[in-house]
Amino acid sequence: MSVTHPKGFRAAGVAAGIKSSGGPDVALVVNDGPDATAAGVFTTNKVKAAPVLWSQQVLRAGIVRAVVLNSGGANACTGSGGFQDTHRTAEHVAAKLTKGRSVLGAADVAVCSTGLIGERLPMDKLLTGINAAVRNLARDGGPAAAEAIMTTDSRAKTTVAQGVGWSVGGMIKGAGMLAPGLATMLCVLTTDAVADQETLDTALRAATARTLDRIDSDGCMSTNDTVLLLASGASGIQPTPEELYEQVHAALDDLGRQLISDAEGATKEIRIEVRAAASEADAVTVGRAVARSNLFKTAMFGNDPNWGRILSAAGTADADFVADNVDVAVNDVWICKGGQAADDRSKVDLSGRDVHVLIDLGAGEETATIWTNDLSHGYVHENSAYST
Amino acid sequence: MSVTHPKGFRAAGVAAGIKSSGGPDVALVVNDGPDATAAGVFTTNKVKAAPVLWSQQVLRAGIVRAVVLNSGGANACTGSGGFQDTHRTAEHVAAKLTKGRSVLGAADVAVCSTGLIGERLPMDKLLTGINAAVRNLARDGGPAAAEAIMTTDSRAKTTVAQGVGWSVGGMIKGAGMLAPGLATMLCVLTTDAVADQETLDTALRAATARTLDRIDSDGCMSTNDTVLLLASGASGIQPTPEELYEQVHAALDDLGRQLISDAEGATKEIRIEVRAAASEADAVTVGRAVARSNLFKTAMFGNDPNWGRILSAAGTADADFVADNVDVAVNDVWICKGGQAADDRSKVDLSGRDVHVLIDLGAGEETATIWTNDLSHGYVHENSAYST
Repeated sequence: MSVTHPKGFRAAGVAAGIKSSGGPDVALVVNDGPDATAAGVFTTNKVKAAPVLWSQQVLRAGIVRAVVLNSGGANACTGSGGFQDTHRTAEHVAAKLTKGRSVLGAADVAVCSTGLIGERLPMDKLLTGINAAVRNLARDGGPAAAEAIMTTDSRAKTTVAQGVGWSVGGMIKGAGMLAPGLATMLCVLTTDAVADQETLDTALRAATARTLDRIDSDGCMSTNDTVLLLASGASGIQPTPEELYEQVHAALDDLGRQLISDAEGATKEIRIEVRAAASEADAVTVGRAVARSNLFKTAMFGNDPNWGRILSAAGTADADFVADNVDVAVNDVWICKGGQAADDRSKVDLSGRDVHVLIDLGAGEETATIWTNDLSHGYVHENSAYST
Repeated sequence: MSVTHPKGFRAAGVAAGIKSSGGPDVALVVNDGPDATAAGVFTTNKVKAAPVLWSQQVLRAGIVRAVVLNSGGANACTGSGGFQDTHRTAEHVAAKLTKGRSVLGAADVAVCSTGLIGERLPMDKLLTGINAAVRNLARDGGPAAAEAIMTTDSRAKTTVAQGVGWSVGGMIKGAGMLAPGLATMLCVLTTDAVADQETLDTALRAATARTLDRIDSDGCMSTNDTVLLLASGASGIQPTPEELYEQVHAALDDLGRQLISDAEGATKEIRIEVRAAASEADAVTVGRAVARSNLFKTAMFGNDPNWGRILSAAGTADADFVADNVDVAVNDVWICKGGQAADDRSKVDLSGRDVHVLIDLGAGEETATIWTNDLSHGYVHENSAYST
């Protein structure tokens, strides 16, 4: 049931004609309260799309009553005109949702966009689509919303994490451009827990840092990455900050796994586990360096347990370890011990989709896991043909 | 004539049976003096091959009388046994070259290796090959040496830069794993200029920083990168430090261009020129971020002037600029002005092999150029099948 699993939320997804395919491309998530606290995490790219700049302003007040999302266009690198489009979009949503005592302003509405960079959105279609989405808002509208934010995703991605008497629901999109800082995507989490803005923010940042931030499909960071967490308080239950973190983490972990399993052109889902690091940051840095090595990724595509490329990539990381102390296992075969060849590499079975790379740095006690994909002909094909 | 163009050098290249192809795989360059000053620049990878560790020690004394190089095996990640192999190689070369009053020690001999990581070298073959190389040493042996260091290179790469009465000769290998810190490779430069070790070192470091360091074919850094500069003093002429730098720079610039034009599977040679940066370091950082974006590189492969991916990659760089001030031209068409779409992208002709990306950051007056390649099916194919 996605973002509409928790109480207090309605959602919709409609086809507004923004996507040339004619598929659903406008999603709306509305928080009916009683609370409207919210937190957000955004791309750290210096080149931010208009909806990111807008939503960052909205989040400063810590209140979000609705999120409108469109696929079919990123509204990035579109200048002041693009920003005005975003503003107008938020105003339109606010006006359409204003009813009786419930008066909304544009500043209550977060906006997310995804698609090609550098083109203005067809505003007539978008605003007409918003009208339809408002009409279609429903307590079971979560799956439709999740479908409307897809771009090159092959399937909609939703999740539910259950607390005691309250829950977290979520949807995510993203299949390429998964990267540092944030795996590219739009992600909306909802909860009917009672939580103030600071508690939401702390939980969201901590959980993102250990989930979506550790996914690195192709090393590229988007202009539009946005992760939002909205709380309605409709359950009447106030979990402890730890309880809230746990469920937010569970939801993001599940959504992150779904992203990796659906990455563009990938034939492998690779879990790079770095252990015995001097610090958690070292473990992350080493894992990311391996995850970003095109030579490692092409070797994986070729079912080649090339541990030399793993060591070589690890050696570029700014981390505290000695090459002669490093052990590497691929799918449980220790093909490298003490920085040298060990078990016979022909014993490694890489025929399946799941790959587990275990790197023991022999430098401490900390650990971290980074998720990535292989680099395949499918990736090259899909990304060399995306916009032309 | 490669490394034997300057006076005072002999070289050879022979087939020792290390490469399974049976092609030439052992090269020897000998400095007959009268001087034997030298400088070296090495990979900054934490995982360094045995020959790199060895040659770094040799260079500490600033004297190199011979360089022995092998393809067919990197001797990286081979532990203390691998290091002993390198030591023994240097000893063998020194013994074979000792004649009459010319007594060489292992510490006079730099060693370079390239090929697959993680396997010990076949020492019998290597030492027998060295014997043959010593017998074949000749004043015109430069081209044969350049051929013997090739791995996936499709052609030998040599250069000559002419001073007044003295010259710089050079050879380089490297076709994949071109990257930061150093584009992977083995590179030997020779000169018959008179120059002390400090002057050589200064010239080599400055010239490398502006040439080979600015080549980034696939973002991967090798365990074996080595660039050596040997001076015989045989011309009797002592150029100024500036004159020496100019010719070393010219030689490395030419060799670097040859690397890019021969990169694995590449269909494009891409010159990323960043101008109007707040600092030269900013220009380099932005150029490198674009050069490493797989989304940009696949777009280039698809002949797609996707400036959104250029801006998006530039925005991940830690550099001082504002997105709204950035202009981008691809092959002289200004498809992005002020961070937005400008000239019609269909005007961009990407049918040729040479691509010029010009990024104006509008943030200052500094400039830098990074060279890279596209990401093609050929790259994926070649690197997923390299060792299996």
